Amino acid sequence: MTHITSIAFDADDTLWESECYFHSTGEWFSRLLSNYTEHAQIDAYMQDVQKRNIAHYGFGVKSYTLSLIETAIDITEGKIDAVAIRQILEMGQEMLTCPIETMPHVYETLELLAKNYKLILITKGDLFHQERKVAASGLGEFFSGVEIVSHKDAASYQRIFEVHKLDIRQSVMVGNSLKSDILPMLDSGGYGVYIPHNYTWVYEHAEEPQSHARFHKLEHIGQLPALIKGFCNVTV
Amino acid sequence: MTHITSIAFDADDTLWESECYFHSTGEWFSRLLSNYTEHAQIDAYMQDVQKRNIAHYGFGVKSYTLSLIETAIDITEGKIDAVAIRQILEMGQEMLTCPIETMPHVYETLELLAKNYKLILITKGDLFHQERKVAASGLGEFFSGVEIVSHKDAASYQRIFEVHKLDIRQSVMVGNSLKSDILPMLDSGGYGVYIPHNYTWVYEHAEEPQSHARFHKLEHIGQLPALIKGFCNVTV
Repeated sequence: MTHITSIAFDADDTLWESECYFHSTGEWFSRLLSNYTEHAQIDAYMQDVQKRNIAHYGFGVKSYTLSLIETAIDITEGKIDAVAIRQILEMGQEMLTCPIETMPHVYETLELLAKNYKLILITKGDLFHQERKVAASGLGEFFSGVEIVSHKDAASYQRIFEVHKLDIRQSVMVGNSLKSDILPMLDSGGYGVYIPHNYTWVYEHAEEPQSHARFHKLEHIGQLPALIKGFCNVTV
Repeated sequence: MTHITSIAFDADDTLWESECYFHSTGEWFSRLLSNYTEHAQIDAYMQDVQKRNIAHYGFGVKSYTLSLIETAIDITEGKIDAVAIRQILEMGQEMLTCPIETMPHVYETLELLAKNYKLILITKGDLFHQERKVAASGLGEFFSGVEIVSHKDAASYQRIFEVHKLDIRQSVMVGNSLKSDILPMLDSGGYGVYIPHNYTWVYEHAEEPQSHARFHKLEHIGQLPALIKGFCNVTV
Protein backbone atom coordinates (compact mmCIF):
# COMPACT_ATOMS: atom_id res chain seq x y z
CA MET A 1 0.00 0.00 0.00
CA THR A 2 1.30 3.43 -0.90
CA HIS A 3 0.58 6.36 1.36
CA ILE A 4 0.79 9.49 -0.78
CA THR A 5 1.66 12.61 1.23
CA SER A 6 2.38 15.27 -1.36
CA ILE A 7 1.48 16.19 -4.92
CA ALA A 8 3.59 18.48 -7.07
CA PHE A 9 2.26 20.24 -10.15
CA ASP A 10 3.86 21.69 -13.23
CA ALA A 11 2.32 25.08 -14.06
CA ASP A 12 2.46 26.03 -17.78
CA ASP A 13 -0.01 23.92 -19.79
CA THR A 14 -0.86 21.85 -16.72
CA LEU A 15 -2.62 24.48 -14.60
CA TRP A 16 -2.94 27.26 -17.16
CA GLU A 17 -2.55 27.84 -20.87
CA SER A 18 0.91 28.91 -22.02
CA GLU A 19 2.20 27.21 -25.15
CA CYS A 20 -0.81 28.42 -27.17
CA TYR A 21 0.52 31.98 -26.79
CA PHE A 22 3.90 30.93 -28.18
CA HIS A 23 2.08 29.11 -30.96
CA SER A 24 -0.03 32.12 -31.98
CA THR A 25 2.94 34.48 -31.66
CA GLY A 26 4.90 32.09 -33.91
CA GLU A 27 2.16 32.30 -36.53
CA TRP A 28 2.05 36.09 -36.29
CA PHE A 29 5.85 36.13 -36.64
CA SER A 30 5.67 34.03 -39.82
CA ARG A 31 3.19 36.49 -41.31
CA LEU A 32 5.46 39.40 -40.34
CA LEU A 33 8.27 37.83 -42.36
CA SER A 34 6.11 36.42 -45.18
CA ASN A 35 7.52 38.91 -47.72
CA TYR A 36 11.00 37.53 -47.14
CA THR A 37 10.63 33.76 -46.93
CA GLU A 38 8.26 30.81 -46.44
CA HIS A 39 6.53 29.76 -43.22
CA ALA A 40 8.20 26.34 -42.92
CA GLN A 41 11.65 27.82 -43.34
CA ILE A 42 11.03 30.52 -40.73
CA ASP A 43 9.75 27.95 -38.27
CA ALA A 44 12.70 25.60 -38.72
CA TYR A 45 15.21 28.46 -38.46
CA MET A 46 13.48 29.77 -35.33
CA GLN A 47 13.59 26.33 -33.66
CA ASP A 48 17.33 26.16 -34.31
CA VAL A 49 17.97 29.65 -32.92
CA GLN A 50 15.90 28.89 -29.81
CA LYS A 51 17.65 25.59 -29.17
CA ARG A 52 21.08 27.23 -29.51
CA ASN A 53 20.11 30.16 -27.32
CA ILE A 54 18.74 28.07 -24.45
CA ALA A 55 22.35 27.46 -23.43
CA HIS A 56 22.83 31.12 -22.50
CA TYR A 57 19.27 32.48 -22.23
CA GLY A 58 17.37 29.66 -20.51
CA PHE A 59 13.59 29.34 -20.94
CA GLY A 60 10.84 31.93 -20.99
CA VAL A 61 9.27 34.79 -22.89
CA LYS A 62 12.27 37.16 -22.72
CA SER A 63 14.51 34.46 -24.21
CA TYR A 64 11.87 33.77 -26.84
CA THR A 65 11.58 37.46 -27.76
CA LEU A 66 15.35 37.77 -28.14
CA SER A 67 15.39 34.65 -30.33
CA LEU A 68 12.57 36.02 -32.50
CA ILE A 69 14.54 39.23 -33.09
CA GLU A 70 17.68 37.25 -33.93
CA THR A 71 15.73 35.04 -36.34
CA ALA A 72 14.08 38.05 -38.01
CA ILE A 73 17.42 39.76 -38.63
CA ASP A 74 19.26 36.67 -39.84
CA ILE A 75 16.55 35.19 -42.06
CA THR A 76 15.99 38.54 -43.84
CA GLU A 77 19.75 39.03 -44.10
CA GLY A 78 19.45 42.29 -42.19
CA LYS A 79 16.70 43.67 -44.42
CA ILE A 80 14.01 43.76 -41.73
CA ASP A 81 13.33 47.31 -40.56
CA ALA A 82 13.29 48.66 -37.01
CA VAL A 83 9.51 49.13 -37.05
CA ALA A 84 9.00 45.37 -37.41
CA ILE A 85 11.51 44.69 -34.64
CA ARG A 86 9.62 47.16 -32.44
CA GLN A 87 6.49 45.08 -33.11
CA ILE A 88 8.29 41.92 -31.96
CA LEU A 89 9.27 43.68 -28.71
CA GLU A 90 5.64 44.70 -28.17
CA MET A 91 4.41 41.19 -28.88
CA GLY A 92 6.84 39.87 -26.23
CA GLN A 93 5.61 42.43 -23.70
CA GLU A 94 2.04 41.44 -24.48
CA MET A 95 2.87 37.78 -23.78
CA LEU A 96 4.34 38.80 -20.41
CA THR A 97 1.26 40.69 -19.34
CA CYS A 98 -1.58 38.66 -20.86
CA PRO A 99 -4.19 37.31 -18.42
CA ILE A 100 -3.80 33.83 -16.93
CA GLU A 101 -6.40 31.37 -18.12
CA THR A 102 -6.58 28.38 -15.80
CA MET A 103 -7.51 25.11 -17.47
CA PRO A 104 -10.81 23.25 -16.85
CA HIS A 105 -11.16 21.42 -13.48
CA VAL A 106 -7.99 23.02 -12.09
CA TYR A 107 -9.42 25.20 -9.34
CA GLU A 108 -11.77 22.64 -7.84
CA THR A 109 -9.21 19.83 -8.09
CA LEU A 110 -6.54 21.81 -6.23
CA GLU A 111 -9.08 22.97 -3.66
CA LEU A 112 -10.06 19.36 -2.97
CA LEU A 113 -6.55 17.90 -2.91
CA ALA A 114 -5.16 20.70 -0.72
CA LYS A 115 -7.31 19.39 2.14
CA ASN A 116 -5.46 16.07 2.35
CA TYR A 117 -2.08 16.53 0.67
CA LYS A 118 0.79 18.97 0.70
CA LEU A 119 0.72 20.65 -2.72
CA ILE A 120 3.84 22.07 -4.35
CA LEU A 121 4.15 23.97 -7.60
CA ILE A 122 7.32 23.21 -9.57
CA THR A 123 7.84 25.29 -12.66
CA LYS A 124 10.69 26.02 -15.02
CA GLY A 125 11.47 29.28 -16.72
CA ASP A 126 11.74 32.94 -15.97
CA LEU A 127 11.59 33.67 -12.23
CA PHE A 128 9.94 37.07 -12.57
CA HIS A 129 7.29 36.00 -15.08
CA GLN A 130 6.44 32.75 -13.33
CA GLU A 131 5.94 34.55 -10.01
CA ARG A 132 3.64 37.00 -11.74
CA LYS A 133 1.63 34.14 -13.27
CA VAL A 134 1.27 32.32 -9.94
CA ALA A 135 -0.03 35.53 -8.35
CA ALA A 136 -2.39 36.25 -11.26
CA SER A 137 -3.74 32.68 -11.34
CA GLY A 138 -5.36 32.98 -7.90
CA LEU A 139 -4.13 29.43 -7.16
CA GLY A 140 -1.23 30.43 -4.89
CA GLU A 141 -3.17 29.75 -1.67
CA PHE A 142 -3.36 26.01 -2.40
CA PHE A 143 0.41 25.53 -2.48
CA SER A 144 2.65 25.17 0.54
CA GLY A 145 5.64 25.77 -1.71
CA VAL A 146 6.37 27.36 -5.09
CA GLU A 147 9.63 26.29 -6.68
CA ILE A 148 10.87 28.02 -9.82
CA VAL A 149 13.88 26.21 -11.27
CA SER A 150 16.09 26.61 -14.31
CA HIS A 151 16.09 22.86 -15.12
CA LYS A 152 13.81 20.00 -14.22
CA ASP A 153 15.97 16.93 -13.70
CA ALA A 154 16.17 14.16 -11.10
CA ALA A 155 18.60 16.21 -8.98
CA SER A 156 16.32 19.23 -8.86
CA TYR A 157 13.28 17.11 -7.85
CA GLN A 158 15.29 15.39 -5.12
CA ARG A 159 16.54 18.74 -3.79
CA ILE A 160 13.03 20.24 -3.74
CA PHE A 161 11.40 17.35 -1.86
CA GLU A 162 14.33 17.30 0.57
CA VAL A 163 13.97 21.02 1.30
CA HIS A 164 10.26 20.51 1.97
CA LYS A 165 11.01 17.49 4.17
CA LEU A 166 8.84 15.20 2.03
CA ASP A 167 9.56 11.63 0.99
CA ILE A 168 9.74 11.65 -2.80
CA ARG A 169 8.66 7.97 -2.86
CA GLN A 170 5.34 9.08 -1.38
CA SER A 171 5.00 11.97 -3.80
CA VAL A 172 3.38 12.51 -7.19
CA MET A 173 4.41 14.89 -9.96
CA VAL A 174 1.67 15.97 -12.37
CA GLY A 175 2.53 17.60 -15.68
CA ASN A 176 2.29 17.77 -19.46
CA SER A 177 5.96 17.18 -20.26
CA LEU A 178 7.25 13.61 -20.20
CA LYS A 179 10.82 14.90 -20.40
CA SER A 180 10.68 17.52 -17.64
CA ASP A 181 7.85 16.48 -15.35
CA ILE A 182 7.48 12.72 -15.54
CA LEU A 183 10.72 10.87 -16.39
CA PRO A 184 12.99 12.60 -13.81
CA MET A 185 10.33 12.03 -11.12
CA LEU A 186 10.08 8.33 -11.97
CA ASP A 187 13.89 8.14 -11.89
CA SER A 188 13.82 9.62 -8.39
CA GLY A 189 11.41 6.99 -7.05
CA GLY A 190 8.26 9.11 -7.18
CA TYR A 191 5.03 8.84 -9.14
CA GLY A 192 4.44 10.55 -12.47
CA VAL A 193 1.01 11.53 -13.76
CA TYR A 194 1.17 12.63 -17.37
CA ILE A 195 -1.63 14.83 -18.71
CA PRO A 196 -0.87 15.55 -22.36
CA HIS A 197 -1.72 18.98 -23.78
CA ASN A 198 -2.56 19.81 -27.41
CA TYR A 199 0.44 22.08 -27.70
CA THR A 200 3.68 20.79 -26.31
CA TRP A 201 6.94 22.37 -27.41
CA VAL A 202 9.10 20.05 -29.51
CA TYR A 203 11.91 20.52 -26.96
CA GLU A 204 9.79 18.73 -24.34
CA HIS A 205 9.12 15.55 -26.31
CA ALA A 206 10.22 12.18 -24.93
CA GLU A 207 9.16 8.55 -25.23
CA GLU A 208 6.24 7.49 -23.08
CA PRO A 209 7.23 4.86 -20.47
CA GLN A 210 5.81 1.40 -21.18
CA SER A 211 4.22 -0.50 -18.30
CA HIS A 212 5.97 1.41 -15.51
CA ALA A 213 4.21 0.79 -12.18
CA ARG A 214 4.50 4.41 -11.03
CA PHE A 215 3.53 6.01 -14.36
CA HIS A 216 -0.04 7.08 -15.07
CA LYS A 217 -1.71 9.00 -17.84
CA LEU A 218 -4.90 11.03 -17.58
CA GLU A 219 -7.05 12.97 -20.02
CA HIS A 220 -7.60 15.89 -17.67
CA ILE A 221 -6.71 17.03 -14.17
CA GLY A 222 -10.26 16.46 -12.89
CA GLN A 223 -9.50 12.71 -12.92
CA LEU A 224 -6.57 13.13 -10.51
CA PRO A 225 -8.29 12.80 -7.09
CA ALA A 226 -9.81 9.41 -8.01
CA LEU A 227 -6.48 8.15 -9.35
CA ILE A 228 -4.58 9.16 -6.22
CA LYS A 229 -7.23 7.66 -3.97
CA GLY A 230 -6.71 4.40 -5.86
CA PHE A 231 -2.93 4.44 -5.13
CA CYS A 232 -3.67 3.68 -1.48
CA ASN A 233 -5.08 0.29 -2.40
CA VAL A 234 -2.19 -0.74 -4.63
CA THR A 235 1.14 -2.18 -3.58
CA VAL A 236 3.99 -1.10 -5.86
CA MET B 1 26.17 39.76 23.60
CA THR B 2 25.10 38.75 20.11
CA HIS B 3 25.74 35.26 18.92
CA ILE B 4 25.92 35.39 15.12
CA THR B 5 25.01 32.08 13.47
CA SER B 6 24.69 32.89 9.78
CA ILE B 7 25.98 35.32 7.20
CA ALA B 8 24.21 36.03 3.94
CA PHE B 9 25.91 37.61 0.95
CA ASP B 10 24.71 39.50 -2.05
CA ALA B 11 26.50 38.32 -5.21
CA ASP B 12 26.77 40.96 -8.00
CA ASP B 13 29.31 43.64 -7.05
CA THR B 14 29.74 42.11 -3.61
CA LEU B 15 31.44 38.81 -4.52
CA TRP B 16 32.15 39.45 -8.19
CA GLU B 17 32.14 42.32 -10.68
CA SER B 18 28.88 42.87 -12.51
CA GLU B 19 27.80 46.50 -12.87
CA CYS B 20 31.04 47.40 -14.67
CA TYR B 21 29.88 45.23 -17.60
CA PHE B 22 26.59 47.15 -17.77
CA HIS B 23 28.57 50.38 -17.54
CA SER B 24 30.93 49.53 -20.39
CA THR B 25 28.08 48.14 -22.52
CA GLY B 26 26.23 51.42 -21.87
CA GLU B 27 29.20 53.38 -23.18
CA TRP B 28 29.51 51.13 -26.22
CA PHE B 29 25.77 51.61 -26.82
CA SER B 30 26.14 55.40 -26.72
CA ARG B 31 28.90 55.22 -29.33
CA LEU B 32 26.71 52.96 -31.49
CA LEU B 33 24.01 55.67 -31.52
CA SER B 34 26.35 58.68 -31.60
CA ASN B 35 25.33 59.55 -35.18
CA TYR B 36 21.74 59.99 -34.06
CA THR B 37 21.88 61.80 -30.73
CA GLU B 38 24.03 62.84 -27.75
CA HIS B 39 25.38 60.59 -25.00
CA ALA B 40 23.51 62.28 -22.12
CA GLN B 41 20.20 62.03 -23.93
CA ILE B 42 20.71 58.35 -24.78
CA ASP B 43 21.62 57.55 -21.19
CA ALA B 44 18.60 59.37 -19.73
CA TYR B 45 16.24 57.74 -22.24
CA MET B 46 17.72 54.33 -21.53
CA GLN B 47 17.26 54.75 -17.75
CA ASP B 48 13.59 55.60 -18.33
CA VAL B 49 13.01 52.60 -20.59
CA GLN B 50 14.72 50.27 -18.10
CA LYS B 51 12.72 51.59 -15.14
CA ARG B 52 9.46 51.21 -17.03
CA ASN B 53 10.36 47.72 -18.26
CA ILE B 54 11.34 46.36 -14.84
CA ALA B 55 7.61 46.02 -14.14
CA HIS B 56 7.24 43.29 -16.78
CA TYR B 57 10.82 42.16 -17.45
CA GLY B 58 12.39 42.11 -13.96
CA PHE B 59 16.17 42.43 -13.55
CA GLY B 60 19.07 40.95 -15.49
CA VAL B 61 20.95 40.93 -18.76
CA LYS B 62 18.08 39.68 -20.96
CA SER B 63 15.85 42.50 -19.68
CA TYR B 64 18.70 44.94 -20.25
CA THR B 65 19.28 43.72 -23.82
CA LEU B 66 15.57 44.08 -24.65
CA SER B 67 15.59 47.61 -23.18
CA LEU B 68 18.68 48.54 -25.21
CA ILE B 69 16.95 47.43 -28.42
CA GLU B 70 13.80 49.37 -27.52
CA THR B 71 15.86 52.49 -26.73
CA ALA B 72 17.83 52.19 -29.98
CA ILE B 73 14.66 51.97 -32.08
CA ASP B 74 12.78 54.75 -30.29
CA ILE B 75 15.59 57.25 -29.95
CA THR B 76 16.52 56.94 -33.65
CA GLU B 77 12.81 57.11 -34.57
CA GLY B 78 13.11 53.75 -36.30
CA LYS B 79 16.15 54.74 -38.37
CA ILE B 80 18.55 52.27 -36.74
CA ASP B 81 19.32 49.34 -39.04
CA ALA B 82 19.08 45.63 -38.31
CA VAL B 83 22.87 45.20 -38.37
CA ALA B 84 23.22 47.49 -35.33
CA ILE B 85 20.41 45.66 -33.53
CA ARG B 86 22.22 42.37 -34.25
CA GLN B 87 25.27 43.88 -32.56
CA ILE B 88 23.19 44.71 -29.46
CA LEU B 89 22.01 41.07 -29.34
CA GLU B 90 25.61 39.88 -29.55
CA MET B 91 26.72 42.28 -26.84
CA GLY B 92 23.98 40.89 -24.56
CA GLN B 93 25.09 37.32 -25.27
CA GLU B 94 28.66 38.31 -24.49
CA MET B 95 27.57 39.72 -21.12
CA LEU B 96 25.83 36.43 -20.34
CA THR B 97 28.90 34.34 -21.04
CA CYS B 98 31.76 36.56 -19.86
CA PRO B 99 34.02 35.06 -17.19
CA ILE B 100 33.31 35.69 -13.51
CA GLU B 101 35.89 37.88 -11.82
CA THR B 102 35.69 37.51 -8.04
CA MET B 103 36.62 40.63 -6.09
CA PRO B 104 39.73 40.92 -3.88
CA HIS B 105 39.67 39.02 -0.52
CA VAL B 106 36.44 37.18 -1.44
CA TYR B 107 37.72 33.61 -1.69
CA GLU B 108 39.79 33.60 1.52
CA THR B 109 37.10 35.45 3.49
CA LEU B 110 34.37 32.98 2.55
CA GLU B 111 36.70 30.05 3.19
CA LEU B 112 37.43 31.36 6.69
CA LEU B 113 33.83 32.27 7.60
CA ALA B 114 32.38 28.99 6.27
CA LYS B 115 34.19 27.18 9.11
CA ASN B 116 32.14 28.90 11.83
CA TYR B 117 28.98 30.23 10.24
CA LYS B 118 26.26 29.07 7.91
CA LEU B 119 26.74 31.05 4.69
CA ILE B 120 23.88 31.82 2.33
CA LEU B 121 23.98 33.56 -1.01
CA ILE B 122 20.99 35.80 -1.74
CA THR B 123 20.89 37.32 -5.18
CA LYS B 124 18.33 39.06 -7.33
CA GLY B 125 17.88 38.82 -11.05
CA ASP B 126 17.73 36.24 -13.76
CA LEU B 127 17.55 32.68 -12.39
CA PHE B 128 19.41 31.06 -15.28
CA HIS B 129 22.24 33.59 -15.45
CA GLN B 130 22.73 33.83 -11.67
CA GLU B 131 23.00 30.03 -11.40
CA ARG B 132 25.60 30.06 -14.16
CA LYS B 133 27.58 32.75 -12.37
CA VAL B 134 27.51 30.90 -9.03
CA ALA B 135 28.82 27.77 -10.78
CA ALA B 136 31.49 29.71 -12.69
CA SER B 137 32.66 31.59 -9.58
CA GLY B 138 33.94 28.45 -7.86
CA LEU B 139 32.44 29.79 -4.61
CA GLY B 140 29.41 27.51 -4.51
CA GLU B 141 30.98 25.05 -2.06
CA PHE B 142 31.04 27.67 0.73
CA PHE B 143 27.29 28.19 0.74
CA SER B 144 24.74 25.97 2.44
CA GLY B 145 22.03 27.73 0.44
CA VAL B 146 21.72 29.74 -2.77
CA GLU B 147 18.56 31.83 -3.02
CA ILE B 148 17.73 33.62 -6.27
CA VAL B 149 14.80 35.98 -5.80
CA SER B 150 12.92 38.47 -7.96
CA HIS B 151 12.79 41.15 -5.24
CA LYS B 152 14.82 41.79 -2.12
CA ASP B 153 12.47 43.12 0.53
CA ALA B 154 11.88 42.42 4.23
CA ALA B 155 9.35 39.68 3.40
CA SER B 156 11.79 37.82 1.13
CA TYR B 157 14.59 37.95 3.74
CA GLN B 158 12.24 36.67 6.45
CA ARG B 159 11.05 33.84 4.22
CA ILE B 160 14.60 32.79 3.31
CA PHE B 161 15.88 32.67 6.90
CA GLU B 162 12.75 30.81 7.95
CA VAL B 163 13.21 28.18 5.23
CA HIS B 164 16.81 27.69 6.36
CA LYS B 165 15.68 27.49 10.02
CA LEU B 166 17.92 30.40 11.01
CA ASP B 167 17.13 33.24 13.41
CA ILE B 168 17.33 36.43 11.36
CA ARG B 169 18.21 38.41 14.52
CA GLN B 170 21.42 36.37 14.70
CA SER B 171 22.15 36.85 11.02
CA VAL B 172 24.12 39.31 8.93
CA MET B 173 23.50 40.44 5.33
CA VAL B 174 26.50 41.73 3.41
CA GLY B 175 26.06 43.71 0.20
CA ASN B 176 26.68 46.79 -1.91
CA SER B 177 23.07 47.97 -2.19
CA LEU B 178 21.59 49.90 0.73
CA LYS B 179 18.14 49.57 -0.81
CA SER B 180 18.13 45.83 -1.53
CA ASP B 181 20.69 44.30 0.83
CA ILE B 182 20.87 46.47 3.93
CA LEU B 183 17.63 48.35 4.73
CA PRO B 184 15.22 45.38 4.42
CA MET B 185 17.58 43.26 6.57
CA LEU B 186 17.71 45.95 9.29
CA ASP B 187 13.90 46.21 9.12
CA SER B 188 13.72 42.45 9.72
CA GLY B 189 15.83 42.60 12.88
CA GLY B 190 19.09 41.40 11.33
CA TYR B 191 22.48 43.02 10.83
CA GLY B 192 23.50 44.86 7.68
CA VAL B 193 27.06 45.23 6.49
CA TYR B 194 27.31 47.70 3.64
CA ILE B 195 30.33 47.49 1.35
CA PRO B 196 29.98 50.24 -1.28
CA HIS B 197 31.12 49.55 -4.83
CA ASN B 198 32.36 52.11 -7.36
CA TYR B 199 29.54 51.30 -9.71
CA THR B 200 26.09 50.99 -8.21
CA TRP B 201 23.05 51.25 -10.43
CA VAL B 202 20.98 54.39 -9.81
CA TYR B 203 17.97 52.13 -9.13
CA GLU B 204 19.72 50.79 -6.01
CA HIS B 205 20.43 54.12 -4.32
CA ALA B 206 19.01 54.82 -0.86
CA GLU B 207 19.90 56.94 2.15
CA GLU B 208 22.56 55.54 4.48
CA PRO B 209 21.17 54.82 7.97
CA GLN B 210 22.49 57.20 10.65
CA SER B 211 23.69 55.70 13.94
CA HIS B 212 21.79 52.41 13.64
CA ALA B 213 23.18 49.84 16.09
CA ARG B 214 22.96 46.94 13.60
CA PHE B 215 24.33 48.83 10.59
CA HIS B 216 27.99 48.68 9.65
CA LYS B 217 30.03 49.89 6.71
CA LEU B 218 33.28 48.41 5.46
CA GLU B 219 35.74 49.31 2.73
CA HIS B 220 36.23 45.73 1.58
CA ILE B 221 35.07 42.21 2.38
CA GLY B 222 38.44 41.26 3.89
CA GLN B 223 37.49 43.33 6.96
CA LEU B 224 34.36 41.24 7.59
CA PRO B 225 35.72 38.45 9.87
CA ALA B 226 37.14 40.94 12.38
CA LEU B 227 33.89 42.92 12.39
CA ILE B 228 31.76 39.86 13.03
CA LYS B 229 34.10 38.61 15.75
CA GLY B 230 33.60 42.00 17.45
CA PHE B 231 29.79 41.55 17.43
CA CYS B 232 30.11 38.86 20.08
CA ASN B 233 31.44 41.36 22.60
CA VAL B 234 28.74 43.94 22.02
CA THR B 235 25.26 44.03 23.47
CA VAL B 236 22.73 45.51 21.07
